[in-house]
Amino acid sequence: MAEPLRIAIAGLGTVGTGVIRLLDANREVLERRAGRAIEVVAVNARERAKDRGVDLSPFAWVDDMQAMAARSDVDVVVELVGGSDGPALTLARAALDAGKGFVTANKAMVAHHGMELAELAAINSAPFAFEAAVAGGIPVVKGLREGTAANALTRIYGILNGTCNYILSEMERTGADFDDMLRAAQEQGFAEADPTFDIEGVDAAHKLAILAAIGFGTRIDFEAVRCAGITQVTASDIAQADALGYVVRLVGIASMEGDGRLLQRVRPCLVPFRHPLAAVTGPTNAVVAEGDFSGRLLFQGAGAGDRPTASAVVADLIDIARGQAGAPFSVPVDQLGSAEPGDPGERRGRDYIRFTVADRPGVLAEITAAMRDAGVSIESLIQRGRDHDGGAVQVAMVTHEGPEHCVTEALALLEGSANLAARPLVMPILKD
Amino acid sequence: MAEPLRIAIAGLGTVGTGVIRLLDANREVLERRAGRAIEVVAVNARERAKDRGVDLSPFAWVDDMQAMAARSDVDVVVELVGGSDGPALTLARAALDAGKGFVTANKAMVAHHGMELAELAAINSAPFAFEAAVAGGIPVVKGLREGTAANALTRIYGILNGTCNYILSEMERTGADFDDMLRAAQEQGFAEADPTFDIEGVDAAHKLAILAAIGFGTRIDFEAVRCAGITQVTASDIAQADALGYVVRLVGIASMEGDGRLLQRVRPCLVPFRHPLAAVTGPTNAVVAEGDFSGRLLFQGAGAGDRPTASAVVADLIDIARGQAGAPFSVPVDQLGSAEPGDPGERRGRDYIRFTVADRPGVLAEITAAMRDAGVSIESLIQRGRDHDGGAVQVAMVTHEGPEHCVTEALALLEGSANLAARPLVMPILKD
Repeated sequence: MAEPLRIAIAGLGTVGTGVIRLLDANREVLERRAGRAIEVVAVNARERAKDRGVDLSPFAWVDDMQAMAARSDVDVVVELVGGSDGPALTLARAALDAGKGFVTANKAMVAHHGMELAELAAINSAPFAFEAAVAGGIPVVKGLREGTAANALTRIYGILNGTCNYILSEMERTGADFDDMLRAAQEQGFAEADPTFDIEGVDAAHKLAILAAIGFGTRIDFEAVRCAGITQVTASDIAQADALGYVVRLVGIASMEGDGRLLQRVRPCLVPFRHPLAAVTGPTNAVVAEGDFSGRLLFQGAGAGDRPTASAVVADLIDIARGQAGAPFSVPVDQLGSAEPGDPGERRGRDYIRFTVADRPGVLAEITAAMRDAGVSIESLIQRGRDHDGGAVQVAMVTHEGPEHCVTEALALLEGSANLAARPLVMPILKD
Repeated sequence: MAEPLRIAIAGLGTVGTGVIRLLDANREVLERRAGRAIEVVAVNARERAKDRGVDLSPFAWVDDMQAMAARSDVDVVVELVGGSDGPALTLARAALDAGKGFVTANKAMVAHHGMELAELAAINSAPFAFEAAVAGGIPVVKGLREGTAANALTRIYGILNGTCNYILSEMERTGADFDDMLRAAQEQGFAEADPTFDIEGVDAAHKLAILAAIGFGTRIDFEAVRCAGITQVTASDIAQADALGYVVRLVGIASMEGDGRLLQRVRPCLVPFRHPLAAVTGPTNAVVAEGDFSGRLLFQGAGAGDRPTASAVVADLIDIARGQAGAPFSVPVDQLGSAEPGDPGERRGRDYIRFTVADRPGVLAEITAAMRDAGVSIESLIQRGRDHDGGAVQVAMVTHEGPEHCVTEALALLEGSANLAARPLVMPILKD
């Protein structure tokens, strides 16, 4: 049996302690699969004294996590601290610079600095892996890096944020409004005290940018992700969608356009009942990859949580122990291409558009005239009665397929209209 | 750039030509991902003259495929001939003996001889890979071998045969009976002229035995798979299931029992509407793996077809080109355990039982008395009117949870009863 793989863990939150628990619980099977033991040698966290329910006494306590990168008894540093910059990034650079493996669950850091870190890893021939950064316990980074490697992918999309999916599917189940379900999600531990990154779609955008780089062989371009969250989605939108045969899900979509440009977006979408993503409820994640030979592949599972995330962290460690870590983005980082951001205006599709309007004559005439003038063809239109919150009325429509810039133009024509009580909400209809 | 990986392809049916097409279509991206070119050097098939729509002129034609194993210009032999024994097996042994990589889509051969071939591969340090043998284009062999490697799995189950799933989901959609849908499936190319292996569950059993070995780290035990097909499932069963909130799917289930015994079964099951497998229709495959840390993971996609299967074959070739093939069953073959076959009688669950009975007094009394005497508790019972095919009537029931041997005992009590017009059909209800 080969020498053990010796790891240091920075960060002992739920995931860090989950990794320690997993390594202990499955010690024997891990050793058989990895061909060698995986041993924690050093740990670090902000508070040493805190009771975490795991025995830390066998491990060296490191007061300054940056010191981990310099330890000669450490092969791999596992970073579970979080934050796109700051100490996590400093540690990543130091570990890779020292030729150590680096494993992280930090999607924000990989989305922002993944290219730099992959370059450092390549220079130092050091493994760099982040399965846990995307979709929790689902082996989708590996799925795209290796499983679909024979394919030119056309589209990668999915439900990448468990908090949003929990809120939306609970709104659907209960008829409750967004604010109430957010509070419920916080109470049940499915949403953080500051949920901004989740509900505004930023977390999903981090993951999407990482998956797009792997799947399309292009450099990560997080800045190019167009991002909208779910805060504007109302109980009434969900009811309208249901009546039309759809559920509402926050979907990240990356597509390689015909012109070689890469369109990356995170938006609430209408998903047809029969689509596999419609059946994804609660804090579950699901990723679809469409390959030119494989066809549509779906990877689904727990999107977060200490145990699933620990499963992904340790899968990376097993790959490293086996000497099978490979290029973090499937192709060597210096061979990743650069794709210009796609033009969403050129996207052809159908949209759901919801207006909140004053309840007075002429409103529908103004809206439909703007649609006509911008060349938007309306497939169906529902005007429901007065809303409970006063004089506003909801008008929802679904457009025929057409280029998105027409919808944008129509909304521009309506901008500032005294008839609109709120900003319209546009949700694309996911194509089958 | 390293030397190309040179392959020989035995068998130029739809999958073999699919591999040639894929290697041509995605040549550039494959070379970037694999770090070297993947080049076909030699091919073989029964008929040389046949027009296959691909240009074979760049490749050496080999009249006797066994000669491929001896060629010094071949690194990997790709076997797409089929058959569990015979020429395919001879070629596999010869290729591995010669230290060449061996890639196959041949589930029957891997199920029957996978252990021997893995041992040969280990002795000769030769890569041996068979992603395409299970679930077509879905990277589920890799998913279990590497993606879930950190977990002790408790259950692996799924829809492993596209032909059966097409037939069952079309019976569901159209209300047609089995024979009619089988004929339709044959006409549409979803079933072979001799469909026995598919509809009797043998093909699914091959795949299940392979997945169980990988997931549980035990030697393949195909003989221990208890197998029932879908030929007994009627339109009426599907209608009853629907009324009760279920769909019927052929499900392969491998579970590691508490006593360390391995239960492997392929059977038509009732799947609750809300379960992800219920949404799997047509020739799609889906595999669920339940890990102690990952929780429930789902892998879904095309279960067969030339292009998806080619995608899986080439994914294996990329792994080999990268030097990342690893142990074919996740742990070295000499470390695979041996699990005794589990006792299905001990399984606790709920069952759907359908009787076809004579339409006369006392039938229900006889059946329910047998249930009572065997300790089977009935949750619901539906007796429908006279069947179209004469005097027989269908009685369907769902049992409360209990040990399976009680159901077996009840049916034994009824064996030979003049009231039963046909053998009863038992379908377990899939647990969430």
